[in-house]
Order: sequence, then C-alpha cells, then structure tokens
Amino acid sequence: MIKTKAYAAQNATSPLVPFELQRRIPGPEDVQIAILYCGVCHSDLHTARNEWRNTLYPSVPGHEIVGRVVAVGDRVGGFKAGDLVGVGCMVDSCGHCTSCSDGEEQYCENGFTGTYNGPLFGGENTYGGYAQTIVVKESFVLRIRHDEKQLASVAPLLCAGITTYSPLRRWGAGPGRRVGIVGLGGLGHMGVKIAHAMGAHVTLFTTSPGKIADGKRLGADEVCISTDPAQMGARANRLDLILNTVAAPHNLDAYLQLLKRDGTMTLVGAPAEAHPSPNVFNLILKRRQLAGSLIGGIRETQEMLDFCVEHGIVSDIEVIAMDYINTAYERMLKGDVKYRFVIDMKSLR
Amino acid sequence: MIKTKAYAAQNATSPLVPFELQRRIPGPEDVQIAILYCGVCHSDLHTARNEWRNTLYPSVPGHEIVGRVVAVGDRVGGFKAGDLVGVGCMVDSCGHCTSCSDGEEQYCENGFTGTYNGPLFGGENTYGGYAQTIVVKESFVLRIRHDEKQLASVAPLLCAGITTYSPLRRWGAGPGRRVGIVGLGGLGHMGVKIAHAMGAHVTLFTTSPGKIADGKRLGADEVCISTDPAQMGARANRLDLILNTVAAPHNLDAYLQLLKRDGTMTLVGAPAEAHPSPNVFNLILKRRQLAGSLIGGIRETQEMLDFCVEHGIVSDIEVIAMDYINTAYERMLKGDVKYRFVIDMKSLR
Repeated sequence: MIKTKAYAAQNATSPLVPFELQRRIPGPEDVQIAILYCGVCHSDLHTARNEWRNTLYPSVPGHEIVGRVVAVGDRVGGFKAGDLVGVGCMVDSCGHCTSCSDGEEQYCENGFTGTYNGPLFGGENTYGGYAQTIVVKESFVLRIRHDEKQLASVAPLLCAGITTYSPLRRWGAGPGRRVGIVGLGGLGHMGVKIAHAMGAHVTLFTTSPGKIADGKRLGADEVCISTDPAQMGARANRLDLILNTVAAPHNLDAYLQLLKRDGTMTLVGAPAEAHPSPNVFNLILKRRQLAGSLIGGIRETQEMLDFCVEHGIVSDIEVIAMDYINTAYERMLKGDVKYRFVIDMKSLR
Repeated sequence: MIKTKAYAAQNATSPLVPFELQRRIPGPEDVQIAILYCGVCHSDLHTARNEWRNTLYPSVPGHEIVGRVVAVGDRVGGFKAGDLVGVGCMVDSCGHCTSCSDGEEQYCENGFTGTYNGPLFGGENTYGGYAQTIVVKESFVLRIRHDEKQLASVAPLLCAGITTYSPLRRWGAGPGRRVGIVGLGGLGHMGVKIAHAMGAHVTLFTTSPGKIADGKRLGADEVCISTDPAQMGARANRLDLILNTVAAPHNLDAYLQLLKRDGTMTLVGAPAEAHPSPNVFNLILKRRQLAGSLIGGIRETQEMLDFCVEHGIVSDIEVIAMDYINTAYERMLKGDVKYRFVIDMKSLR
C-alpha cells in the first residue's frame, strides 16, 4: 500500500483534520497520480457534514483533482509518468449497463463509484482528492492539455465545468439560442463562460447587484436581478434554456415563466430541502420541461476539457492551503469566494 | 344573428339550465355547423363551477363538438353544406406569432380564443358546444372521416384524443418504446388506445383493480396497481415516457422513479391545488424530465383524427340527453363513466 497524507472529517460536526490513508499499489490498469491541486466543491461540504445523510467516515472529500502521473500499470496505454491528468467525480462504474455502454457512466445503472464516499448505492468507502496521492483506473483518468501554469484553475473544470457543460450541450446551447444561468457561484460562473463560448446569448440571474459587472466580464450578455419583478417580467417567455445552479430551495415558477414554448429548465443544484412545488400550468401552457442533470460521462468530460483549452476557459479561483479548508467552508457558505477555492497540495507536505 | 338553444351555467353554484344564445351570421371565412354530439370534458365542469377562477357567465361549456355543415361563407374552400366536421378547444388565435406560424395555435403567444369562456388572456365570452348550432372560422374546423354511425364516439377525440395524441407523438411513443399511462378516465382511456396503436408497449397505472380487464381490452400490455409498492418497485427505471392524466394532486415521485435515464413524464391534467413538490434527485440522478402539454394544434388535430380512422379508434362513451348534464357531472366526479359522456343534441330540440 501507498501511505498518503490527507485531510478528513471524522464525523458530521468536527472540523476536517490531518489524516493518513493508504492507496492501493497500482494494478495493471491503474494510474498513480501525485495530486497538485484539488478544487473545493459544495458537495465536499455536504458530505463532510453528512447533509445528504449518507456519509461514510472518515470522509476525505475532493473530486476536482489535477496532478501528475508518477506510475502506471502494465496495461495502461494512454498515460505515462510525467503526464498532467485530472480526476473528477467518478473513479469506477459497472462498465456493462446501458448507461456505461453509452459513455454516460454518471448514470450507471449499478451505481458509479464516487471519487469519495464510495459507490452510489452503498459499498466500501473511497477517499478523494484532499490528499497527496490517488490511484485511479485508467478509464476514469482525464488528459489535461491546458498550459501547466494554469493547472490550479483547471481543477474546478472536473466537476463545476462538466456539470454545466453537459446540460448546455444536451439542451442545445449555441448560436441563436437564449440561455439563462441562475446563480453566480462555482457552477454558475462556469456556466456563464461555457454558454458564452458555445455562442449562446447569455443572461445571468443573480440576487446580487454587486455581481453585474463580474457577470458581464465572465461572458454574460445581460444580467437580471432576480429579486426585481420588473426585470424578471420583462424576460417572460424569452429563454430557450435555463441552467439553474442554485442549491438552496427557491421559487422555480419565477424562472419557468421565462422559458419560451418548449423551453427547458435544468436543475444541477441539489438542495437538502425541497423547492416549493412548481405550478403545473407553467409547464402545460407552454409545453415546458423541468429537468435535472448530473455531472457528465468520462468521454464528455474529456470533450469539455478540450473545449476549454480551445476557448481559453479556466475557472476563477482563490488558491488556499490545506489547513485553511475549514475557514474556506465557512466562507463558501456565505458565498464569499470568487468563484472556487482550490487547495494547493504542496501545503500538505 | 342566429338564435340557438343551449344549456348554460349562470353562476358557480347553480345547475346548468336551458339558455338561448345568438351566433353570428357566417362571415366569408365562417362555417355554420349543426351540432349533432358534444362530449363532456372535465374542463367543462371546472369552468361551469369557476374552479379555475376565470369563468365568464353565462357559461356554455363543450369543446368536443361534431356536427354537419349547414352553411359556409364565400371564401370557405375546404367545406360545404352536408360535410361532417368537428370543433375542438379553440376557435381562433392571433395567426401571426411564432406558435401560430408553427401550427401550434394552442400556445398562441397572444392567447388563443377558447371554444368557450373566450380568449385565454381575457376578452369577450364565447359559447361552446352545449348548443344546437355553432359558427366557426374555417381554419379551426376539422374534417371527420370516420363512418357517420360512429359520430358520437368521435366527439371526445376533439379534446381527449388530441390531448393524449400530441404528447405521445412529441415524446416519441412508438415501436420499441415503453409508455406508461397514469389514470384510466376520459383522457387515460384515449392515451391507452392511441399509444397502443402507435406501436408502443403500454403500461396502464390505476388505483382500481376493477379496471385491469378493461385496461387490457383497451390496449394496455400490462396494468400496474399504483397503490401497490411491490408492483411499482418492480417497474423502476423501465419506462421511456409517462403520460400522466390525473388531475388530482398526487405524489409525482412515485412515477418519476419509473422512468429510465432521459425519460420524460408529461402532465396533461391540471389540478386546482399543487402536487407535492417532486424530489429533484429523481430528476438529476437519471437526467429525467417533467413536462406539460396542452391539447394540440389544428394541423395535428386533423392528423390525430385521420390516425384514428386508420387505426379504428373512437372513444368509449355513454350517450346522454342534454337535461342529464348535471347528473352526468356528479357521476363524472365519482369516476362513474366509461369513459366519456357525450350529449346527443337532438335532445335539445
């Protein structure tokens, strides 16, 4: 086994603390990665604090991992020592169900294995990227083609990037299409950049007038203050697609009404409590759809990374040391980060 | 003006009573129709009793109209006296918005004019099919190609038929697709027949064990008793499309969980009170969609009527006299009709 320094939550209420874990010796299909940076996703906090009531402890979060290959198994053909690579939210899936066959491992019918907290439908715990080293099956390792100097800013693409890219592609963001992005946080700021790069007309919805300038800098064509009924009313029936990144319960009807006939609002935020029930007339009277979307498959994650290289997209980040993580969580809860914390793993040595 | 015998609700709480109304003299683009039969839709009752809080009185319901042309205007090219025709839920729309241009008049951005209760967004009242005569613009008149002997059973196709046909077409009911129909009432029994005729594998969901045999007779491949968790659980992740016809508030999650990845549940029932809020994880974890659909456009309504001729489809009905309407409403509320009341307008003479 390979001993690795890490940070872990030991229970739902204590701060994360230093922890030592063991990774497996790379098997024939495994890639051993020295983690250089790991992004901090809101799911990390949900899991560390057992807010989804399914946490296995000790819990080592982190699924926005970038690093350098240090060793590969005999049968690994795509990577060699020295390569820059990434690992996202998944490290395994059944490989033979319809979803896996379709390259949509995130919907694996037998439950994918999360990079942390183990298999979706229960099983042995897995430990994520708040650590120095990780060993991952080659088929779940992504190639990083960004410039090495951008590496820290690439980390959040592995979750926030693909979580927004995949639904934007699926529901047709592109030239001639009007796309709304709800919320300007870790997910939302990636959604704005990616939808803009896809060629869509982008409207950012935020409750914060202080975010107007930043929203436009990131690529929004317009910014709507969602608490202003006049601004919202002026946009009724105008959008083809809304990507809703807000994880707190809120009134979905206010956004459904902004969709054109046949428009779709896709939820990627998962609140711990339910949203107020949407009014079905808002669906029926314009044949609108309310959908959900979960990260993206491995093939599409690679496509997203390459798209981001081509369009010069990285995440806007604040680099932190590992021992700052508990403070970072508190700041994240207040929305006090532009727009993603990324842990520099040198700080763990 | 043309004097016409009819039945009307004068307010939300009194029974419907005889009423005389006046139809316009047919203009150059109008078709004057002697109404032979009119189906009784649940919307008639909602409107007569002001349950959607938008009723204009006196209210003459009825939008499942079949009859014979008695006169046409100078510029009417498609119909002549003696033709069998139908009129559904709409008698006008703006004609120039995107939805009208697309032949989707039911989503007219300026609000279509209902066959009864006037324009969607407010305006002068219109009177529906509980009457001897109606005068309708040619472009909202449908051709009936069924055998004349089936005419009474054709009436419900004008609303219940198109309301189920349109979403089944849109979300791809057909060979190799597994379709669920929730509820076996006026809409549901048409949904079962039409989905079966489209070649889909049809599962009917009902709370009534007494409807199993009838569900299969109508075309269901299987019937699931929706109150039985074992029967529901056995169908998890198996359906491509669910058409939910139930207009009473109920737990949508129980059905969302039956959809495969990328499956859609489309609501066509409009409850007066909200459904319990659906769990967004049921959308996110399988990229499912919750949608709504409203009747269908005129072109598609004609397509549906012709499809029903080709596949030998009519509605299962109970013919009633006009003065039975108040009793029929009470029986409809108890689900005591197989599966649609149709008024024989001879009874109004």
